[in-house]
Amino acid sequence: MTRRKIALAGIGKIARDAHVPALSDSPDWELAATISRHNSLDGIDAYEGIDAFLEARPDIDTVSLALPPGPRLDYAFKALRAGRHVMLEKPPGRTVTEARALLEAAREAGVTLYASWHSRQGGAVARAAEIVAEHGARHIEIDWREDVRAHHPDQDWVWDAGNLGVFDPGINAFSIVARMLGRAPWPVSAVLTYPQGRETPITAEIALAEAGGARIDCRLDWRWTGEDVWTVEAQTGAGLLRLTDSGGRLFLDGTEQEVGETAEYPLVYETLARLVAEGESEVDLAPLQIAADCFLLARHERGEPFEW
Amino acid sequence: MTRRKIALAGIGKIARDAHVPALSDSPDWELAATISRHNSLDGIDAYEGIDAFLEARPDIDTVSLALPPGPRLDYAFKALRAGRHVMLEKPPGRTVTEARALLEAAREAGVTLYASWHSRQGGAVARAAEIVAEHGARHIEIDWREDVRAHHPDQDWVWDAGNLGVFDPGINAFSIVARMLGRAPWPVSAVLTYPQGRETPITAEIALAEAGGARIDCRLDWRWTGEDVWTVEAQTGAGLLRLTDSGGRLFLDGTEQEVGETAEYPLVYETLARLVAEGESEVDLAPLQIAADCFLLARHERGEPFEW
Repeated sequence: MTRRKIALAGIGKIARDAHVPALSDSPDWELAATISRHNSLDGIDAYEGIDAFLEARPDIDTVSLALPPGPRLDYAFKALRAGRHVMLEKPPGRTVTEARALLEAAREAGVTLYASWHSRQGGAVARAAEIVAEHGARHIEIDWREDVRAHHPDQDWVWDAGNLGVFDPGINAFSIVARMLGRAPWPVSAVLTYPQGRETPITAEIALAEAGGARIDCRLDWRWTGEDVWTVEAQTGAGLLRLTDSGGRLFLDGTEQEVGETAEYPLVYETLARLVAEGESEVDLAPLQIAADCFLLARHERGEPFEW
Repeated sequence: MTRRKIALAGIGKIARDAHVPALSDSPDWELAATISRHNSLDGIDAYEGIDAFLEARPDIDTVSLALPPGPRLDYAFKALRAGRHVMLEKPPGRTVTEARALLEAAREAGVTLYASWHSRQGGAVARAAEIVAEHGARHIEIDWREDVRAHHPDQDWVWDAGNLGVFDPGINAFSIVARMLGRAPWPVSAVLTYPQGRETPITAEIALAEAGGARIDCRLDWRWTGEDVWTVEAQTGAGLLRLTDSGGRLFLDGTEQEVGETAEYPLVYETLARLVAEGESEVDLAPLQIAADCFLLARHERGEPFEW
């Protein structure tokens, strides 16, 4: 089978750590070009911007955008309108409305748009969803704590308005829980704490509800200095379900479950290959929507100043 | 033609000022019951809560909920799951996600859900939409100023988290602009000012974009003490389009246009009758979505304290 050509835009840390290795090993994709103002990869054709790429490479019909949502929007509109299939890293947009407009542009162009959620890929979340579908879930607790200094050292942009703050990791939890339940929960109360002088929250305490009746408590904390805590716990009819490692491992009443493949980015690119082959789009906006809904109804409080 | 029976839940100011007169004059509807803990209407069967009503009146298949979104959610789920058609006042929910869950419940029950936007009813907004569709729109300015003390005297709940603050009127502007453009704009930047000690914003300065390329500037201000300013201005290929009176009147290059019927609530109930007859739902979440997106990416600033 010939592999399909793909271009990767944005050659930063996540591209080198996750996208490039996944594409190198992929049976589906051949990384045929990069698009980046400052970086390139040995032996791969490099273009400095989306316009130059679209002009030069009509032979590459799929573009993966490993860029932050702000600069990415213009790239995505241009690629879609030029008839290319597009993959977006999570989150699918700075706002839900712009992501919906992208989906509309994909439909008009008759191409695939795939908004990926890497944390919900893999066997653990799929198995958790099966257990919940069969046995139901009552109380769910989301505990999401990590050290912003370890994950984003000196990256002041994480505190710029619109960049989500502690919801940047927290949205992964929402992506897992929405997949696990098969429907999206909505916040009923939220308290967000912003460091003095910063524009995004460093902690969030959220209570959510959903149409199936489960109650969900959620704690997001970027001040944590221990090992990452990325855990979802659910009281189910089959016992206490516990997803750890951001959807990577599954325990039932304390016993780890065999869940098969868990490599997130290879699975993301496998999904992209299937969507392009089938001519389908997959754009689940629920996780970003939950975050937007949290900001909509939250108390916005000021906390201690934050310095790196 | 026999009129179809409808129940009205929530007998407050908006019900008495707008819903009851519209229903009294309606060729489609017969107000057959009220649902309210504290109020009733002379000569109309009264029920104290949704459970008692649903139990007692299987003959009334449509319920209009003139309640605030918080307490309304439970009423709406119960009525839909009992197989009744439901109408919601704007906004359609405290959160977008809960409103989506209601739409899903309506689909499962095979009944109509209608989320009304009274400001976009009437001939002026419809005519504005025609002009924009034909001639295009470039720069749009939303100017929405009113005196919160005049519209919500001593109503401390407007400052409770989740009750939208100045977006409570502002969302009417979003409903008009989304209808006028035929697509939803998204915020690219927003500054929201919260009075010290209050949990919702009193002013908002927002810049929006949309897939058609129009630039939109929006100013919402609840501190205003003059006459209400509820104006949308658009530079169009046909001249300067100006909607005033919250979508009630239309001017083109300064000349008022004849726009036909503008009575908002009679038109809302006419739409409801059509939707129920056709077995359709109409739930446009774009205006609430735009508000949620504004909160998502805004700078949240503290301003002067507010006292009544």
